[in-house]
Amino acid sequence: MGDGYEKLLAPTDPRIKHYPRSIARRIRVALGQEPGDLLLTGGQVVNVFNRRVEPADVVIADGTIAGVGPYEWRASQTVPATGLFILPGLIDAHMHLESTLLTPAELARLIVPLGTTAVISDSHEIGNVLGVRGIDMLAAACEGLPLDLFFMASSCVPATRWEDAGAVLGPAEVGTLLSRPRVLGLAEVMDVPAVLAAEADVLAKVETALCAGTVVDGHAPSLTGRELIAYASAGIRSDHESTTAEEARAKAALGMLIQVREGSSAQNLDAILPLLASGELDDLWCLVTDDIFPTDLLRHGHLDGLLRRVVAGGVAPGVAVRHAAYVPARHYGLADRGAVAPGYRADLVLVENLTDFRARMVIKGGQVAARDGLCLDVGISPGLPHENTIHLPHLDEGSFQLPISAVTCPVIEVVPDQIVTLRALRTVRRVDGRWAFDPECDVLMIASIERHRASGRIGLGLVSGFRLTHDGALGSSVAHDSHNLIIAGTNARDMLICASALAAHGGGFVVAAGGLVQAILPLPVAGLLSIEPADVVCRQLGEVDRAAHALGCPLTAPFGTLSFLALSVIPELRITAQGVFDVREQRFLSL
Amino acid sequence: MGDGYEKLLAPTDPRIKHYPRSIARRIRVALGQEPGDLLLTGGQVVNVFNRRVEPADVVIADGTIAGVGPYEWRASQTVPATGLFILPGLIDAHMHLESTLLTPAELARLIVPLGTTAVISDSHEIGNVLGVRGIDMLAAACEGLPLDLFFMASSCVPATRWEDAGAVLGPAEVGTLLSRPRVLGLAEVMDVPAVLAAEADVLAKVETALCAGTVVDGHAPSLTGRELIAYASAGIRSDHESTTAEEARAKAALGMLIQVREGSSAQNLDAILPLLASGELDDLWCLVTDDIFPTDLLRHGHLDGLLRRVVAGGVAPGVAVRHAAYVPARHYGLADRGAVAPGYRADLVLVENLTDFRARMVIKGGQVAARDGLCLDVGISPGLPHENTIHLPHLDEGSFQLPISAVTCPVIEVVPDQIVTLRALRTVRRVDGRWAFDPECDVLMIASIERHRASGRIGLGLVSGFRLTHDGALGSSVAHDSHNLIIAGTNARDMLICASALAAHGGGFVVAAGGLVQAILPLPVAGLLSIEPADVVCRQLGEVDRAAHALGCPLTAPFGTLSFLALSVIPELRITAQGVFDVREQRFLSL
Repeated sequence: MGDGYEKLLAPTDPRIKHYPRSIARRIRVALGQEPGDLLLTGGQVVNVFNRRVEPADVVIADGTIAGVGPYEWRASQTVPATGLFILPGLIDAHMHLESTLLTPAELARLIVPLGTTAVISDSHEIGNVLGVRGIDMLAAACEGLPLDLFFMASSCVPATRWEDAGAVLGPAEVGTLLSRPRVLGLAEVMDVPAVLAAEADVLAKVETALCAGTVVDGHAPSLTGRELIAYASAGIRSDHESTTAEEARAKAALGMLIQVREGSSAQNLDAILPLLASGELDDLWCLVTDDIFPTDLLRHGHLDGLLRRVVAGGVAPGVAVRHAAYVPARHYGLADRGAVAPGYRADLVLVENLTDFRARMVIKGGQVAARDGLCLDVGISPGLPHENTIHLPHLDEGSFQLPISAVTCPVIEVVPDQIVTLRALRTVRRVDGRWAFDPECDVLMIASIERHRASGRIGLGLVSGFRLTHDGALGSSVAHDSHNLIIAGTNARDMLICASALAAHGGGFVVAAGGLVQAILPLPVAGLLSIEPADVVCRQLGEVDRAAHALGCPLTAPFGTLSFLALSVIPELRITAQGVFDVREQRFLSL
Repeated sequence: MGDGYEKLLAPTDPRIKHYPRSIARRIRVALGQEPGDLLLTGGQVVNVFNRRVEPADVVIADGTIAGVGPYEWRASQTVPATGLFILPGLIDAHMHLESTLLTPAELARLIVPLGTTAVISDSHEIGNVLGVRGIDMLAAACEGLPLDLFFMASSCVPATRWEDAGAVLGPAEVGTLLSRPRVLGLAEVMDVPAVLAAEADVLAKVETALCAGTVVDGHAPSLTGRELIAYASAGIRSDHESTTAEEARAKAALGMLIQVREGSSAQNLDAILPLLASGELDDLWCLVTDDIFPTDLLRHGHLDGLLRRVVAGGVAPGVAVRHAAYVPARHYGLADRGAVAPGYRADLVLVENLTDFRARMVIKGGQVAARDGLCLDVGISPGLPHENTIHLPHLDEGSFQLPISAVTCPVIEVVPDQIVTLRALRTVRRVDGRWAFDPECDVLMIASIERHRASGRIGLGLVSGFRLTHDGALGSSVAHDSHNLIIAGTNARDMLICASALAAHGGGFVVAAGGLVQAILPLPVAGLLSIEPADVVCRQLGEVDRAAHALGCPLTAPFGTLSFLALSVIPELRITAQGVFDVREQRFLSL
């Protein structure tokens, strides 16, 4: 066919809208000339175009919907849907899938039964560890799952120049990622100051994505006025950081898709819900989770849980479903998803009612994928390779000795349930010119150990807020965004035990006390993901949390808090492998 | 940048959303750090996102909008817009530009001052004459114009197997066209029976377009029920043939974009307008002209005229503008068009009010392109090559002799102002075994002469409805869709004169009488387009119409009627170079 195919997608491209060679059969099935593969009878279909709910049968051929309506169709398998409502598969338009700690297959097992059939992930956690190869690994692990995972090319790896990440994603690597079939555009452009300073590197990434004809996601908390206009003028067309109705309204007026976020660490739905109910945001909203723990998915559900709350808040069910499926599909160019209509992919959710959206059955690509909360089969999914990515230098107890010049020291002060920290001054115990733990004083040593190249870089500092009353330490290989080891503890021995255990398991969450590991959640895939089933991961997460609580730590999610203490873009103080960093002053402190 | 650029568009691709290297400047302009190129002050902006009309300045840099809002901006040129309303440039989502008879440059000169800044053309007329090369010629003639012309890859060339077209566009040629930067998808799939019969050739074209990630346009007059569902299941997502509210409602319920058509030969706006006013079609409508003569553009305007009527019919101005700009831009993937917002292309229309939409100024890509109804400059547009495409065999008066076996003959009966014809029986005059004109009897000889390859194929038949009372003939090189010569006349001599004049001018509309050309509108570009300015074309069109009327023909648009008599997909009788064709019976008649 000559040069006509230059622009064509590969036949295996997941964005291909129709299974080749099936259009003819679909037409014959729609016309009643031959049987389809699956027929849903007697249900009510939620039409995302006119937002009505109407009785209709649905016939499927080769994974795609051939017909919807009050016609006689035949199929080799019939599923009675009497009393049920048929929705398109739900789509989470912005998630960092690594925050679930699960492999794609285990994530599918957890959320497909809840009605989610596609997720768009910014996998910048694994990007920071393994670069393009990490995102390629996750993409490969999606093949054959009943959940379609798409990716956005991460725009800010590393997050700042003050961090030692495992990889750098420059404009060239972003271009490489954009050429991948599952990559839909450029991920949240978090470095707002760099955009406003018109820095060449970040704008080259934006330009690369726009020239590829793809979308660019935003991340612009509290940005207003001229600066918001300048940010939008770069071609950034979505945002998931609106925390007030006013902020959402202003961003939508510029044409940005408001991705209403409700995850484990940030919840904005209540603030934005009145705007959704009033219709003011018109077509410019959808629902996302951003960062969510598997325990919260188990407890509150996924998009089904958000639909419940949106409808309870006054949004008509047909509108709510449109925005949880069709609107994100259209925004990201997934042209055959998000509707129960002829020619659309047969990703369907059968729910009992349009108030609690509990899924009785989930159909993915025309196959029954889940029934009554259980995933039938996650298919043959290639396992994730989990070579150990934790590369440490020689460490001993001497590695965790912090000389201090005075007993009054600057410490990183945790603010419970927030990711900002404060810069505080505390009087601490000093023994032989070094910091020493004082059970009366809520101050721990905190260490960030570069773990990608065993460079020997170790940053040491002090943190308050963990309120340990017993000797021990908490360690994690999840430390945004560079994911170096981060360990907080009362003494060098337990901190060393944490480092050794993390190195042995290839990463994880660990608690040590009395020279012994008390509990561990291993995360052997890039130090970020477990290879265990979701229920095991949730149990292990409970165990490490309980072990931390046993040391006296009252924080709801000690490892969530710990993991954000390295993120050197958020005020005020952070720990990196280069030391304690003052974000406002953009410099390292000396203790 | 390695393999990352596989999917990237060429830097000159008209779909590229941002002028490279200008993002940085745009940001600085938005922040007020440096002056832009053009600043519109004191106007009211129509916001297509929230549909509000609000006072705002607009600052432009490098052809793109940098800022919109109540801020202090600077620019090297300031245009006061006090008292004016600022809209995005209007987009006609479905036009056969050849029906205007104008070159792209002359079309721009005519419609840019009316506020149209982009047109999506299915140029299947030139496709039938010159194939891919014809569409490439038109695309090349667009470069540098203040009007962006995009194309859809024609899906039905030739329209049927009963015609002798100049070219065939099979799946391979459709693939070639889809690789062109200005081609946005597959044009109206008119061969509904072929789709419903699941014919491989047409479905291969649909599949090629879908696999390229592009949209597929529909054309499905009166299709309902199961057949409409089957048609939609192929992935066809628009339609411009709805003639009733009921039809539009049914198509929109399947997610098809309803392109409300108001052209020279078909007008559907009045029928659909109540649906637009009630909001029932939601986002699924836009405005198109399909086929429009330059005289109608002069008389009634283009999209500006339709906006007047839509708003008078009860659609809020913000909604109407959204659907005349943003909705078609989004549907066809023109992601930086259709809104007056930061990061969007600076295609703007300044109108006096939101009732008559008269444009005071049109800005294209940041440059003032028209003022007070006059195009300032159509730029340096390459001329269209006009090698003569009329290739005729030797013809003489003997070529126009029609032997008839009886005095009662089947004739093609014209239905005034419609393109359907009737099969009628008429008693005619017979001299020496041949048809002869009888002034008392409204029957003319009609000839279709294959003109692409001088094959010598000439089909002869009889037509009634032209009601000539004087001896003479009308000839045209525009004869849908194959564009062979079509000539109707009372006598062989004048018909031969018509053929000779058309051959000499490379095509056109011609009237001959008494052995002399009475009037001619030359169409030397592929026998379809004039190279003259719009006002000359309109004058010449008036002259040939008057010459036809002088022979007694009462039809409003004699050449419009003549041009459709060869279209062998529309009942009942048609003339092709292979003879008189009965569309219902799918066979040729013998006289």
